[in-house]
Amino acid sequence: MSDPQPLVGIVMGSDSDWPVMEQAALALDELGVPYEADVVSAHRMPQEMLAYGQQAAERGLRVIVAGAGGAAHLPGMLAAVTPLPVIGVPVPLRYLDGMDSLLSIVQMPAGVPVATVSVGGARNAGLLAARILGAGEGEDARRLREAMVAFQADLRDRAHAKGA
Amino acid sequence: MSDPQPLVGIVMGSDSDWPVMEQAALALDELGVPYEADVVSAHRMPQEMLAYGQQAAERGLRVIVAGAGGAAHLPGMLAAVTPLPVIGVPVPLRYLDGMDSLLSIVQMPAGVPVATVSVGGARNAGLLAARILGAGEGEDARRLREAMVAFQADLRDRAHAKGA
Amino acid sequence: MSDPQPLVGIVMGSDSDWPVMEQAALALDELGVPYEADVVSAHRMPQEMLAYGQQAAERGLRVIVAGAGGAAHLPGMLAAVTPLPVIGVPVPLRYLDGMDSLLSIVQMPAGVPVATVSVGGARNAGLLAARILGAGEGEDARRLREAMVAFQADLRDRAHAKGA
Amino acid sequence: MSDPQPLVGIVMGSDSDWPVMEQAALALDELGVPYEADVVSAHRMPQEMLAYGQQAAERGLRVIVAGAGGAAHLPGMLAAVTPLPVIGVPVPLRYLDGMDSLLSIVQMPAGVPVATVSVGGARNAGLLAARILGAGEGEDARRLREAMVAFQADLRDRAHAKGA
Amino acid sequence: MSDPQPLVGIVMGSDSDWPVMEQAALALDELGVPYEADVVSAHRMPQEMLAYGQQAAERGLRVIVAGAGGAAHLPGMLAAVTPLPVIGVPVPLRYLDGMDSLLSIVQMPAGVPVATVSVGGARNAGLLAARILGAGEGEDARRLREAMVAFQADLRDRAHAKGA
Amino acid sequence: MSDPQPLVGIVMGSDSDWPVMEQAALALDELGVPYEADVVSAHRMPQEMLAYGQQAAERGLRVIVAGAGGAAHLPGMLAAVTPLPVIGVPVPLRYLDGMDSLLSIVQMPAGVPVATVSVGGARNAGLLAARILGAGEGEDARRLREAMVAFQADLRDRAHAKGA
Amino acid sequence: MSDPQPLVGIVMGSDSDWPVMEQAALALDELGVPYEADVVSAHRMPQEMLAYGQQAAERGLRVIVAGAGGAAHLPGMLAAVTPLPVIGVPVPLRYLDGMDSLLSIVQMPAGVPVATVSVGGARNAGLLAARILGAGEGEDARRLREAMVAFQADLRDRAHAKGA
Amino acid sequence: MSDPQPLVGIVMGSDSDWPVMEQAALALDELGVPYEADVVSAHRMPQEMLAYGQQAAERGLRVIVAGAGGAAHLPGMLAAVTPLPVIGVPVPLRYLDGMDSLLSIVQMPAGVPVATVSVGGARNAGLLAARILGAGEGEDARRLREAMVAFQADLRDRAHAKGA
Repeated sequence: MSDPQPLVGIVMGSDSDWPVMEQAALALDELGVPYEADVVSAHRMPQEMLAYGQQAAERGLRVIVAGAGGAAHLPGMLAAVTPLPVIGVPVPLRYLDGMDSLLSIVQMPAGVPVATVSVGGARNAGLLAARILGAGEGEDARRLREAMVAFQADLRDRAHAKGA
Repeated sequence: MSDPQPLVGIVMGSDSDWPVMEQAALALDELGVPYEADVVSAHRMPQEMLAYGQQAAERGLRVIVAGAGGAAHLPGMLAAVTPLPVIGVPVPLRYLDGMDSLLSIVQMPAGVPVATVSVGGARNAGLLAARILGAGEGEDARRLREAMVAFQADLRDRAHAKGA
Repeated sequence: MSDPQPLVGIVMGSDSDWPVMEQAALALDELGVPYEADVVSAHRMPQEMLAYGQQAAERGLRVIVAGAGGAAHLPGMLAAVTPLPVIGVPVPLRYLDGMDSLLSIVQMPAGVPVATVSVGGARNAGLLAARILGAGEGEDARRLREAMVAFQADLRDRAHAKGA
Repeated sequence: MSDPQPLVGIVMGSDSDWPVMEQAALALDELGVPYEADVVSAHRMPQEMLAYGQQAAERGLRVIVAGAGGAAHLPGMLAAVTPLPVIGVPVPLRYLDGMDSLLSIVQMPAGVPVATVSVGGARNAGLLAARILGAGEGEDARRLREAMVAFQADLRDRAHAKGA
Repeated sequence: MSDPQPLVGIVMGSDSDWPVMEQAALALDELGVPYEADVVSAHRMPQEMLAYGQQAAERGLRVIVAGAGGAAHLPGMLAAVTPLPVIGVPVPLRYLDGMDSLLSIVQMPAGVPVATVSVGGARNAGLLAARILGAGEGEDARRLREAMVAFQADLRDRAHAKGA
Repeated sequence: MSDPQPLVGIVMGSDSDWPVMEQAALALDELGVPYEADVVSAHRMPQEMLAYGQQAAERGLRVIVAGAGGAAHLPGMLAAVTPLPVIGVPVPLRYLDGMDSLLSIVQMPAGVPVATVSVGGARNAGLLAARILGAGEGEDARRLREAMVAFQADLRDRAHAKGA
Repeated sequence: MSDPQPLVGIVMGSDSDWPVMEQAALALDELGVPYEADVVSAHRMPQEMLAYGQQAAERGLRVIVAGAGGAAHLPGMLAAVTPLPVIGVPVPLRYLDGMDSLLSIVQMPAGVPVATVSVGGARNAGLLAARILGAGEGEDARRLREAMVAFQADLRDRAHAKGA
Repeated sequence: MSDPQPLVGIVMGSDSDWPVMEQAALALDELGVPYEADVVSAHRMPQEMLAYGQQAAERGLRVIVAGAGGAAHLPGMLAAVTPLPVIGVPVPLRYLDGMDSLLSIVQMPAGVPVATVSVGGARNAGLLAARILGAGEGEDARRLREAMVAFQADLRDRAHAKGA
């Protein structure tokens, strides 16, 4: 994991979610965004989970990426205790293809938003975190916006190269 | 609400859930089980919500009935911090007919069970709480088991009376 | 299976459900709760199934855990003939990922509750049975509540150990 | 209801199902098939329900039409105790549009079939009962087959009359 | 396939459905009911399909069992042109777990019933055909009813033998 | 309805589908495409339905628009007997929001395509018929292509006018 | 791929869609319809995608077949910028069995139709393109209509050969 | 609408989406975030829609909130052409309860994220936009973070006031 002050906190309900959530970390690596990653279970360590959310902003985090599966409460509970934007990744479990994870994350009540990505869509969660950081003021944000533009140009070029 | 030491705590994420959750209270009234009812939102007052769950057993509660809708995290979060049995009531919202509420409550990860009833099934939540209290030792439990047997006989008689 | 007076009856519609339902037994073993396990099919031996439910309380059982798949009628039918709390485990079949099992168990009509856990969630059914037994009065219940608190602390510690 | 030896038994879990189930009776009236109708709840009077199924054949019934909603166990439980063909009608409840009723009735395990019709499709249940009675030997069956052919011709004529 | 006058016609939309539909044939073999089996595609040979349905009764068939997958039109189209009872078997395809097949078969409009069994439930289709034949008058029907009672007793005994 | 040689045949399973299907006719009116409209039920007049499909091409029709609800077989059965393109409109019924209609129409087996539009999307069916006619050779097709370009420009202008 | 002026443009959002989309090309090959195939991603090269759609008609294409998965926007976006008929193929992804792809393609708003085929139904997309080309005026269209009639006769013969 | 340099662009596919999307504007008003609102249809004015997305960043927008229903392509297409974070609001249409809108928005392919909120959840979209703006550097961001903390405290107080 990365050394400078992390800007993104990647958390997941269980270490079995890492093969999915790792894609968020890789996307942030590609874009040079420092992050931290941790297991923070809403159901198994609720007090620590709330503490993580409550301290995230003052610890210097600017975005939280949270993945969980089934009755997935981690993203929503973190969003309840932090003013930071929280991105939720529905992790698919053995049954129901992640539909339970998706609805448990996206259907948040008015007042507590979670920015939800696709089932298993951790890579997009990382990219969304970068876009969010790039939406701000200052030099770092400008640099990230430019990196995102370059990233999109690269996507286009590679897609184009696959055409006839 | 009732006067003696409440044995069942009925909680809900929002006072708009009361028209559904009231049926749990009425069922407990019918069976003479003392209860309390409160709004305890997982998303709007998470710290108080955890405190409610952590103190429930020592305050003398023996069962918690929790209703919530959409990305319904209240029952599962309470189950994470209390050793008491928690009954979850999926409250249907305007869209999706409560399927989101149901999956958000029932699909809990291994280790943290929630006893889930049907969409909008608060009356059954009350009856299940009574069955749970009736499963224990002592005189009160015996009385409740007998009341439940009488309740079932009454159900049968009323159903029978509707037959030809 | 265990020797002293069983307090939990684990039943399933078919012996093919055992690989799922065994997790309920293992959870009860961990917590030292005596149980019995049996195949009691609602559809293949309905009279014996009703008899099982009708005699459960007087035989000393205090909770029933019932698993079934597809048009899963076992938990609900048992709940109709016993005053005991009945926990239903939706067993997933080859198609539909257990959604049929879940709806057939959880959507019980008012008057006859089934405490439903997640698709394939037999371990949680065992833990819920222990919580129910721990909700009662007396020494055994107190011991179980304490065991459950220790169990939750252990969950937290193990989840914590997986963090960074 | 009708006077001669009923050949079809129409049963439902609750008298609130009658507005749906009445269509089965009307279809049988149109085709001159004698029937009886009754409330027989699987969950509220399980013993009487089983008795109804066990005695149906010897009482002279030849087909059972059973309607129920939600976790709908009536058709399947009757099919478990009678050698007669059982037709299941998924009655839609307030939520989920009858999808729970449908899956609870149609997804029966191997060995115990229920002939399921559409959500709310009680009229087709009556017509299917008539087809079943018309599939047998003897004069009455022949008469019913002819009535069914005439019925289909009438359907066609009325559909045709609506064309341009 | 069998020699005497077939009483049940087993048809399917494609020979790839045979591994599923064969279970209907095996059930009829067990009960000594003569049948025929054929590929009759609603979509690839619609005229022959209608002819099959129109001639089924006069050819001596008394029940039709029709299996199909996806937009499964075979059972419903046959039911439209025969006065015989038609049993529909939803054959699951590669995607959607047979939910498309189920809805395409069971949701028939008023006037044209199809007796639908579970996804992939061809064995139950065979058993239902036998129940239908056993519902009629005469010696053969009486024999089949008795065979069905014996079959159910055997189911019970085998389920019982698996209990503890 | 219109006078010159109709190019599009609008058919529906029941006259109760007309409030939905009328939108196809109105779209064709707007674009000056002659059509005919009729009730042709797959289930109530199957022989006439097949005849309609078999004669459509030689009668001068070039596209068929077929709407049906529930177990909706009309579009697929017509597609089985005509070489013309068939557009299917899933008509929503009282329950299930048209999901049954959609799957019954769109999930056609390989070999027999149906061009499916959205639930209740009859207006788009009319527009798709016009696009199909505009895809051909000759003056009329060219005129329709131009009309479609103008139609799209008008859509854009009206959408634009609603902007700030 | 084919040499003369292509009449059908087969496009897909990603080259990983080719194993599915290839079936459209094979169907067109069988019927002698010239086509082109290309990767044109709505999300990775949106400007080129719009250009493809805007130039399709003037480049001589007469039908577009577009496949995409998940939040599948390619067919609908192309339909928005071309007067040609656009056929959409829902490509199933790893989760949700293509239900997301299907709804993202078929549920287009009024004004912009997409002719949707089944999940993974690229072969039918090719056949539908041929039917559309065969619906026009002129010699080529007549030849295609005849080829389609022969194709259907062949389907029938092969299905018939599989019957008993 | 608001006067200073807008930071959030609220766009929707149709002015009929405004009653839903207005809640995003109201939330931004409460928090003092300047925004603009416009109708920008992906399907009816695709070129203008792409232009909107391409110019958003240079025009000074920092977040886009896009609402659409059915086959909802607007959020994803905008995300494809802007480096800004895009928040998608699934607008429910007449059928399917917004499930089509949700899947069309949330299931974006890797590379192009959309931050999706609940069905009809426009208020949360506005709040999420504010959180995103508050995640950045500088004084304005700090002020917004503090406003969000105050907002959450107010939510808690009001929820608390509803408790017993």
